[in-house]
Amino acid sequence: SMDGAPPPASPAGLSAYVAVSQLLGLTLLATTGAWLGRYRDGVAWDSPLQFNVHPLCMVLGMVFLQGDALLVYRVFRHEAKRSTKALHALLHGLALVIALVGIIAVFESHRTKGIPNMYSLHSWCGMAAFVLYLLQWLLGCGFFFLPGTSFSLRSRYKPQHVFFGIALFALSIAACLLGITEMLLFNIRDSYSHFVPEGVLANTLGVLLVAFGLVVGYVLTRDDWKRPPLAEELALSMDFKTLREHESSSGGSQ
Amino acid sequence: SMDGAPPPASPAGLSAYVAVSQLLGLTLLATTGAWLGRYRDGVAWDSPLQFNVHPLCMVLGMVFLQGDALLVYRVFRHEAKRSTKALHALLHGLALVIALVGIIAVFESHRTKGIPNMYSLHSWCGMAAFVLYLLQWLLGCGFFFLPGTSFSLRSRYKPQHVFFGIALFALSIAACLLGITEMLLFNIRDSYSHFVPEGVLANTLGVLLVAFGLVVGYVLTRDDWKRPPLAEELALSMDFKTLREHESSSGGSQ
Repeated sequence: SMDGAPPPASPAGLSAYVAVSQLLGLTLLATTGAWLGRYRDGVAWDSPLQFNVHPLCMVLGMVFLQGDALLVYRVFRHEAKRSTKALHALLHGLALVIALVGIIAVFESHRTKGIPNMYSLHSWCGMAAFVLYLLQWLLGCGFFFLPGTSFSLRSRYKPQHVFFGIALFALSIAACLLGITEMLLFNIRDSYSHFVPEGVLANTLGVLLVAFGLVVGYVLTRDDWKRPPLAEELALSMDFKTLREHESSSGGSQ
Repeated sequence: SMDGAPPPASPAGLSAYVAVSQLLGLTLLATTGAWLGRYRDGVAWDSPLQFNVHPLCMVLGMVFLQGDALLVYRVFRHEAKRSTKALHALLHGLALVIALVGIIAVFESHRTKGIPNMYSLHSWCGMAAFVLYLLQWLLGCGFFFLPGTSFSLRSRYKPQHVFFGIALFALSIAACLLGITEMLLFNIRDSYSHFVPEGVLANTLGVLLVAFGLVVGYVLTRDDWKRPPLAEELALSMDFKTLREHESSSGGSQ
């Protein structure tokens, strides 16, 4: 930092939890790859394997990248807010693009095979998660990047943004669990109940998804791990608070 | 109240959200009943219909009652903490008993029909949710009802209790969504993709479950809707804070 003081350390527990989340994240990507590669003949675009692009992209985009995008304010807690915010939006944007590729893959695959779209609970939950996630991203860009948006408006929208961010992350994981169940019941309906390796592996992927969600959710909601405001941000918000107190003491709205 | 002052009002928004949550809760119970009654021949214990006891009990216990138990601190925000806490534990206890009946129903039904247990992702997630929910209830009773537990220990456990409470509620809902998907793929596998009424109804039940979870989650996590401490509780926590400050200034831990 500029005054030569050592950069402030992150809480020790936080680093450990973030490390566990990343291990879980990489493990769940590897497990998805192992399932598709070992039992579902791999992944390819212009082929009957096009469907397999779908689970891979959804786990990568809607779970791993979405989760990591949520974590950036905890991980880069002493960087300038401006850069952290840009990284947050960028990772969510990348997650959206990858998820879109995954959605196109399943629609294309259905078209080739003559399977109807959007009839299952998985498709309803998954599409709701994707559309609301896109909407949340657009609203977030509007509120937090447009220079015209006032500090007061941003402060009022922020709690909603945070709540829906975590809720959509949970819904995305639930949609993945539904997708795993559908895929197993379509592919190994009769052997699933005999604990065949593919079933156990895919169930394990489900458990890893839940574990990733729990660890990320814990890091995000723990009060003393929230990003502390930098000195200059604090000064700004103090100014704002004084202004607001002045407003309400002179009969202004709140 | 004792000094004759009118009881303090709840925030207006809170009451509206709680009302919506209860409407959603009753609607999802009715939808479950309609599904089982209209398309699955109803519910009975000693019969091939025993399985149907399972979804009914799980939606009632693990979703509706669990959700309402979470809400009591927001709804009864100006009652004595002691009574609200008792109601919180009682509703969770009732939810656990009803869920246990639902679990026995599916194990009995599987035994009669010769179907293996615990092979599916639904059963893994559902059983994890139930066992951890029971554990959370036991820990909660230990920490918050045993008279020997210190105020300091309770304060340190409380954030964990709140986080895991909400996380287990979300996992319970996810397990229900998985159960709906399994049941549809076992019963109407071939017609599901043609948007038959049973499929659409069961999908709608899934959407209602997600909506109930979202509304309850929003009410629970909104900062300005948290239960304000009563005057006597505040005095107690002030005493405790003073004590702790004294401890740390004299070289104690924390």
